[in-house]
Amino acid sequence: MHKLDGSWFTEIAAEEGVALSLQGRRLQVEQTPYQNIEIYETDSFGTMMVIDGCVMLTDRDGFIYHEMLAHPALFAHPAPRRVLIIGGGACGTLREVLRHKGVESVVQVELDERVTRLSELYFPELCEANGDPRVKQSFGDGAPWVRAEPEASLDVIIIDSTDPVGPAEELFSESFYRECLRVLRADGILVQQSESPFFYAQTILDMHRSLRAAGFADVRSLTFPQPTYPSGWWSATMGKKDGRLNSFRRRDAEEKPFPTRYYSAIVHETAFVLPPFLKEALAAIR
Amino acid sequence: MHKLDGSWFTEIAAEEGVALSLQGRRLQVEQTPYQNIEIYETDSFGTMMVIDGCVMLTDRDGFIYHEMLAHPALFAHPAPRRVLIIGGGACGTLREVLRHKGVESVVQVELDERVTRLSELYFPELCEANGDPRVKQSFGDGAPWVRAEPEASLDVIIIDSTDPVGPAEELFSESFYRECLRVLRADGILVQQSESPFFYAQTILDMHRSLRAAGFADVRSLTFPQPTYPSGWWSATMGKKDGRLNSFRRRDAEEKPFPTRYYSAIVHETAFVLPPFLKEALAAIR
Repeated sequence: MHKLDGSWFTEIAAEEGVALSLQGRRLQVEQTPYQNIEIYETDSFGTMMVIDGCVMLTDRDGFIYHEMLAHPALFAHPAPRRVLIIGGGACGTLREVLRHKGVESVVQVELDERVTRLSELYFPELCEANGDPRVKQSFGDGAPWVRAEPEASLDVIIIDSTDPVGPAEELFSESFYRECLRVLRADGILVQQSESPFFYAQTILDMHRSLRAAGFADVRSLTFPQPTYPSGWWSATMGKKDGRLNSFRRRDAEEKPFPTRYYSAIVHETAFVLPPFLKEALAAIR
Repeated sequence: MHKLDGSWFTEIAAEEGVALSLQGRRLQVEQTPYQNIEIYETDSFGTMMVIDGCVMLTDRDGFIYHEMLAHPALFAHPAPRRVLIIGGGACGTLREVLRHKGVESVVQVELDERVTRLSELYFPELCEANGDPRVKQSFGDGAPWVRAEPEASLDVIIIDSTDPVGPAEELFSESFYRECLRVLRADGILVQQSESPFFYAQTILDMHRSLRAAGFADVRSLTFPQPTYPSGWWSATMGKKDGRLNSFRRRDAEEKPFPTRYYSAIVHETAFVLPPFLKEALAAIR
């Protein structure tokens, strides 16, 4: 067996019996009231943020996740103007949302202000648009924030949270989804990171069940590679308040006035194609 | 930093500064004239074969690789009858090829007979069709085998080899591709595993260049998740002797009389969709 020396950070996915290691050195560590945050300078993935031992973000592959959480939802909506991001404190998703000129306001509600402050320091390019007058950053718990919002006031809700254990657990509940549905306008869309389709298909199934039970008219999942997350394959799950999710503003996506490295109109369309093993599991609950 | 104890196997992708570890115990190790082969019983991925320190195959995720190496090529060909597999000694790809009833003969040329003997012992389900009268298994070097084949004698060549360093290096060369082109019949297709699109895009670019230089009329790459390979995202590259690769026997793929867990007609079609960062790099050499 190979030995990894002290120059490697290792994330162990204990239940799955796998671990991913990245070579580098730790620049900073702090315990906040919510979680443990570490910053590393890795040898080949640039700067990396780790929360409670799990890789959250690296310079090298974060673009895939941020683009795939923001653009499919925004191009699936006919005219998104008011957007809410829950979590996402590193601000990479926020930056992608702000590329949409039609968006008039984005509220970001991140539980832990330190995530954002450390991102400003270590991932300044992700935070470059934070001064945009359309942005309002708020720090606190996302679920009560949504409960306090007026009915039919938002077009898109992006839930860019940690895993459905610990602080983020409530964000995967039917009662929370019901509140999201209430605050969404007609044509409203919710999208949420939904873990590895390879390891945690059950999480995706549970989310489909809960979103439908909460009243979302259509629910679909999309997948994309994410090399530094467990299994290297990740998903997002989208719910639409009314109507179907089988179309999007294709022309606008094809002619978008900003660059993307992973997202494109055809990637949007094909990201929703699921392999038989996953499709059959989801079909069973429809 | 987390410590992995002696119960973990670790593959270090040194150049990329990442390592993947799987928990389990080693059942067998042997040094053959060609390489070092290890067999592990992992805690969550079943049995695993490791060659020269690199994960080749696990019970849990091997199906994606085997299906995506075999079925896209076979359904892209109008009527594949004679198939050659170079490498692939574990026989998972061979099993998928044999599911196609129209295939009349499959020759498998594996360099190292011990890979196949160990697979018979540890991955018996992959070898269950090896007794099929259509199969001829041969052990030796693939490149001279192809040079000795008569012109226009094969429909599909599947190159299921190790990485383009060491014993398999010649299998990624223009001169070898030229020989493959010679032995392919009209409509002939070559497909080859082509590494991680995230880490080794350069390998894919080099293959496109070499396959075109060798005379292949169309070259395209497809991608799929592969959790136990570096980056968790893998690719295969396909060359067609004449005509375009933009169609396949969709109806046959939709109505295939055998089950698959990752491959489907729509997965076939969408696997060729590449994200902008990869598409742009490939477009530059066309």
